[in-house]
Order: sequence, then structure tokens, then C-alpha cells
Amino acid sequence: MTGLKRSWVDSANSAETDFPLNNLPYGVYDKGDEEVFCGVAIGDYILNLTKLEEDQVLDLGLGVSLFGWGTFDPLIDEGQQVWDQLRTWCETVLKEGSPVEKTIAPYLDAREGVRMHMPFEVVEYTDFYAGKNHAFNVGTMFRGPENALPPNWLSIPIGYNGRASSVVISGTDVTRPNGQLKGPDDELPHFGPCARWDFELEMGAIVGKPSEGMVSVKEADDMIFGYVLLNDWSARDIQAWEYQPLGPFQAKATATTISPWIVTKAALEPFRTSTPEGERPLLPYLKEPGPMLYDIDLEVSVAPEGKPETVVTRTNYKEMYYSAAQQLAHHTTSGCPMRPGDLLGSGTISGETKESRGSMLELSWGGKEPLTLDSGETRTFLEDGDTVTFRGAAKGNDYKIGFGECVGKTLPAAEIPDWAKE
Amino acid sequence: MTGLKRSWVDSANSAETDFPLNNLPYGVYDKGDEEVFCGVAIGDYILNLTKLEEDQVLDLGLGVSLFGWGTFDPLIDEGQQVWDQLRTWCETVLKEGSPVEKTIAPYLDAREGVRMHMPFEVVEYTDFYAGKNHAFNVGTMFRGPENALPPNWLSIPIGYNGRASSVVISGTDVTRPNGQLKGPDDELPHFGPCARWDFELEMGAIVGKPSEGMVSVKEADDMIFGYVLLNDWSARDIQAWEYQPLGPFQAKATATTISPWIVTKAALEPFRTSTPEGERPLLPYLKEPGPMLYDIDLEVSVAPEGKPETVVTRTNYKEMYYSAAQQLAHHTTSGCPMRPGDLLGSGTISGETKESRGSMLELSWGGKEPLTLDSGETRTFLEDGDTVTFRGAAKGNDYKIGFGECVGKTLPAAEIPDWAKE
Repeated sequence: MTGLKRSWVDSANSAETDFPLNNLPYGVYDKGDEEVFCGVAIGDYILNLTKLEEDQVLDLGLGVSLFGWGTFDPLIDEGQQVWDQLRTWCETVLKEGSPVEKTIAPYLDAREGVRMHMPFEVVEYTDFYAGKNHAFNVGTMFRGPENALPPNWLSIPIGYNGRASSVVISGTDVTRPNGQLKGPDDELPHFGPCARWDFELEMGAIVGKPSEGMVSVKEADDMIFGYVLLNDWSARDIQAWEYQPLGPFQAKATATTISPWIVTKAALEPFRTSTPEGERPLLPYLKEPGPMLYDIDLEVSVAPEGKPETVVTRTNYKEMYYSAAQQLAHHTTSGCPMRPGDLLGSGTISGETKESRGSMLELSWGGKEPLTLDSGETRTFLEDGDTVTFRGAAKGNDYKIGFGECVGKTLPAAEIPDWAKE
Repeated sequence: MTGLKRSWVDSANSAETDFPLNNLPYGVYDKGDEEVFCGVAIGDYILNLTKLEEDQVLDLGLGVSLFGWGTFDPLIDEGQQVWDQLRTWCETVLKEGSPVEKTIAPYLDAREGVRMHMPFEVVEYTDFYAGKNHAFNVGTMFRGPENALPPNWLSIPIGYNGRASSVVISGTDVTRPNGQLKGPDDELPHFGPCARWDFELEMGAIVGKPSEGMVSVKEADDMIFGYVLLNDWSARDIQAWEYQPLGPFQAKATATTISPWIVTKAALEPFRTSTPEGERPLLPYLKEPGPMLYDIDLEVSVAPEGKPETVVTRTNYKEMYYSAAQQLAHHTTSGCPMRPGDLLGSGTISGETKESRGSMLELSWGGKEPLTLDSGETRTFLEDGDTVTFRGAAKGNDYKIGFGECVGKTLPAAEIPDWAKE
């Protein structure tokens, strides 16, 4: 594993920053007015790619603007060679001793106070169920430990299509959903606010290249542009009543929050690790030709309104049973066309211990074992005003590849309109 | 019900044409070269809106081009007032006795021989399961007649998110998928071509306006731009192994074919009909304030390669238990943002009799009762080379509102690559 790459931007040389020269993640931001920029995080700053391109300091020789559109979609569409070219350019101009420091320095915007935007258009969103501990925990609660894992689970990276229109950027408030609810003892369902509102700790993989027919795991890995943290907000009570036989629908359609900085595959390269030895042999099309998971420490905190946050779980992306590359390969088996901008949620990432579970459903064991927060309050599921924050970083000896934060605060459910009242 | 509206385009005045002046559906086409046009079907012709706009014969006073983009998305985005304005304009210039006949006539392209394109961009695709006979038939096959309908079925228009990237226009060949398969007696799954390849007869509703929060059934109905025929191709054996617990995924991701002409809600207005009296009272948010289904005769034919077609089912859209408006209203309950270009599949439309079932799964009762085609061949599921054609029309006394055809031919599965072989 290589060590910290030093930059002339001092704050990028700390072991504490999420954004050393080794990282160089992509984000879209504004500085308080209507102008929106594409940038690269470096220490406490953002390198303004839009302005650099406008002033022709940055010119990748493509003859078209890549960064004048308020989204990284044009860069993603260009493919691997241009991704590499841009990363090399950024590394070269930002490294310690770069002769162009004086030229580049005016293009640094302070990161503090900027407002982040969606860095790409989510064309479709697929959510997986590929964490074994999570699947086992949830299955145990619903069906007992003997039948916890569905029969197909060890053979298929189980996934379902989510709702792209509901994906929002970190910092967006999320309104508790209303929905159809039916308790186990109710004769008929009623319509009302979700009472079991939850987060799911996931990683999101962003597809950067289109598929043509079925792709191998190796090809799938090559198709991935980068990763984000992803909170797949879940209404457990809506889900319980609606999800059979065709899967979760409105329970997962309120919002999915992603962290604002796309951490590229290139930055994560030193942190590759393998999926676990399978308990059942995988079919050849799902076998990994090399390590395709990543060693990324993850944590979730919950902060009640006006109170300090409490870390409620600590886990690691390497807990997954299937990698994003395996999921993407499986996604193409039927001939399903994948496109740049497809977002794949990993599935909830839970470790083996109670303290490493990736959802309130698991942490409070279906609501039966409330958590006590540092403020003294207890929680089974999320309450109005609670802010949930995900953080994640791959950790080297003297640097880390951080993802920034993935934050969302829950607002009270909308009032039920008269025409929907019973 | 009003009668046939007469046009100076003679072929539009026949009781047999799908496209009388009463219809005026929207489609995108080319005439054999690269130029793509937006048009309105009228009898055997297409009124070329793109050329009419280019020559400023058609000017809705918007100051922007609506028809120069090879898609109806700009029209859809404009909303109800412009939809009405365009429909009125088309009706006025095409009606019998119109003083502008000589000006308009040069803008008619023969419909025969044109190639149709997708008329709008499918931003997301949701498929429902809202036909009671279909749900009962499938449930009976899998769980017996006592447990055929899931407990939530009479309360929720059950839906799941499908795959927008796989939606194709009528006439596109569809390649039989490969996938993970596991027979009931197999110990482990294998990877191979789908052996139970099926169509599903559905209607597709196209959302034309964005939602803001939860919408009522009335508001949902107002949001719908128009309807198409929809074939939700299904791999029954892939589905059987993958679909628990999170729903169909690769089984439904190969292709979904839509008919090329968007029939507007305005054209279907005289054919409104109500959903059936519920067997269990619906929650208030799902109650229809008026008739929201349509009386549309539907049929499906299957033609083996080089052989004539056989009509295998005849049914009607009014067999549905839930309307598209109810489905769309339910879709927004969680706050899920709906956008212009959302496509909603009705769910398979099956009548009560054997001859009116909307899928091979039901027609052959899970493969146990083969159908005999006119050619003498038998079918349980679809074979390579089979062409499936849907046709549909709402029928007045002396005219019909037709949808044209929704056609797809099944090509043999792709060869399994070496790296996927066992």
C-alpha cells in the first residue's frame, strides 16, 4: 500500500482529512448563488474544474466542455481513458512541488460553506440484499434462524429495482412517509404515517459505461466509475404489509440519500479485498477473478433534534458477501441494458456483532431492544427531528480515502389530506 | 358516445381503421433515412408535425420547437393546455370541409413502410399486478385456490419497479434470456437459456405531469398523458428461482415492448368505465371519483416462424381491478416523485374464461395444457422464431380508437460465453 501523496495544499497532507491527494473525488457545488461548479475535493478546498476549463487552464483536448453542465455525466460518458487523463492532470497540478501551483491556487474554493448538488443523474437505481449478516438477521426475525436465508441467497446477489427519482443528495431533509399499514392483529389496513422509519447503511456503486449483452465480473468491475455512501431509507411497517409477493415498493420510494463526493475506483485501488469464501460454490459467471470488494470503515450516528450525535454502529464494506462487480454482472445476465448513471446499492452492511448492525431494525431487534443514545433518549426506530449521518473511509497507514458525510434529517410526515381520511 | 368524426383523409373514415379523426395518436417515425419525425396517425397516413412546425404552418405560439427533437417529450412537458391546443389544431385542419386541406395535404406521409421509434423517453417503468383473474390464476397454480390472492391484494394495487432501459418499441426483436435456473428437483441452480418464455398482455399508461407529494386518484388521472399496449416479456423459470423475497428482477429485465402510437386520454374519453365493485372496501385515497378504466378490446396472436398467426386470447382492459389512476395515486403515497415519462404497466389482463387469459403461463396452465395453433403446432410457452402480436381498440358504433400493433419476435438465446460455462 502506497503512503500519503503530498500536495502543496497543506490541509490535504493530514492523516485526518478525507481528501488527500490520493483521493481526488468529484462533486458538484455552489457557493451561495445560482452558479454551479464541478470540482475535486482536496483537503479543505475544492479545485474548481468548471472555472479551470472555462479559462482553458484545463483542456483535455476533447473539443467539448466536460464541466460546464453542473454534473459529471459528460465526464462519465467519456470512459476510462479520459477518467485516467483527468485524474493524472489533477494529481500533477496539485502535488507538492508542482511548478504550476501559482496558476492553480486561485482555482481553489474553500470547502466550508458550499452547498453540494447531485454529482450525476441517476438513470436507474437498483438495490441489492447482499450482506449476509443483514439477510440473516432480518430472516431470523421474520422466519426464525433455521429459515433465515432464502434458498436462493447463496447463489444469487438478490436485487430489486428501486426508484431513481427518489435519490437525493446528502443534506436533503427527508419527510417521514405516509402509507398503508396493517398490524398483525388488525383486520383491515389503515392509512397513516410510518411508525417504523429506518436507515440502511449501504455503499452505492455508479456505473460509468454501458453494457452490451451479458458481462463478466471483470468487465463489470471495469464499468464502475466510483462509489458513494448510500442511505436506503426504509419504512419497515409499510414494507411488511406491501412486500409480498413482488417486493418492496412504497417502503423504499420516499428517499435514498447519497454522499456528495464520488470516490473513484482508482482512489480505492490499494484497498481491494476479496468477498468471503462462498458457503456454496458460485456459478462460474459470478466468480471473481481478483479482489473486487474494498476495505472501507463505516459508521452511523444518530442525533436527536438539538442534541449531540451518538455513533450507533461501526462496520466495514468488506462484510459483504457479493461485490458490486458481481451484482452488476448478474444484472446483465438477462440482457438487461445497463447505462452510465445506473446506481447500485450494495444492500445493508452489517457486521457479525450487535454493535455493527447496519439498520435500526437490526440494532433494536425489530423494536424489542431499544438503543440508549448518549443524550439519554432511547430509540427503536427513527423519530422526527433525528439526523442520521454516515461516514466512511478506507484507511492507509498515514492517510485515508474518505467519503465525506451522508446526512439526512427526518421531518414529520405530511398531514393526511381530507380526501385520504377515513 | 359520439359517432365517427369525418376527415378529408378518406381512409380515416372507415369503421376498420385504427386511426379515425376521433383518435389522433402520436408517434415518431422515419421514412428509411436518418431523419426522424413526430407525427399524428390519420387513416393510412401520418400528419408530419415536424415538417409542419418547420414550415411554420403549425405554430402553437410557444416560441420553442416542440417537434424537432424526435420525441414527444417536449409536448408532454408542456402540460394539459398545450396538449388540448395541439389536438384541437389537428382536428380542425383534418376534418371534412377544412378550408386548409390543400395546405395540409402535402404534409401527409404514407403510414405503410415507415419505421417507428420510441415516442418518448421512459424515465422509469413500474409494473403492476392489478388484474384479479391473472393474480388468481397465478396464485392458484403456485398456492392453491384457497390462498390464491395474497392478503394485501384487495387493498393495494401491488406494483414493483421495472427496468426502463429495457423498454423497446414494437417491431424490435427480443432475444430469449439466459439466467439462473433451478428446477424443483435440482439440488443446485445452473446457468442457461430460459425454457418458460412468456408474454404478458398489458396496457401502459404514460405519466405526463410531475407529482408534488401525494396525489388523489382524480389528480392522478389528470396526470396521465396517454396509453399504449405493453408486452411485459417474462422468463417464468428465472422468476420462480429469483423472485423471493424481493420480487422479479432478471425475469422481467430482458425487454418490455410498447406499441408505437400514444393514444391520448382525450381520444379514449367516450370509453371510460368503472373498476369493479370492490370485494373489500378500498381506503379513501384509492376511491375513484368517476370511471377511470377504459373499455378496450384486446387480443394476442402467436405466429411460429414462417407460419400464419393464431389468436390465442381475447380480453378487455376493463377486466382490471385497479385503474392506472389508482395505481399512480398509490405510487405517490410515500412521497415518491413521479415525472413525465414514467411508464406504468397495468399488470396482466386476463378475463374469467380460459380463452381470455393474458399470458402463456395461464393459457397452458403452467405448461400442463398445451395450446394447439392453427398451424397444428402446440405451445406451452414461446419458442424461438415465434412472433407475438397484441392488438387493441376501443369500439364505438361506426368507428374505433385503435392502438395499432405491439409486435415482437423471439430470437434464440445468446450463446453462453466460455467464462460462464460450468
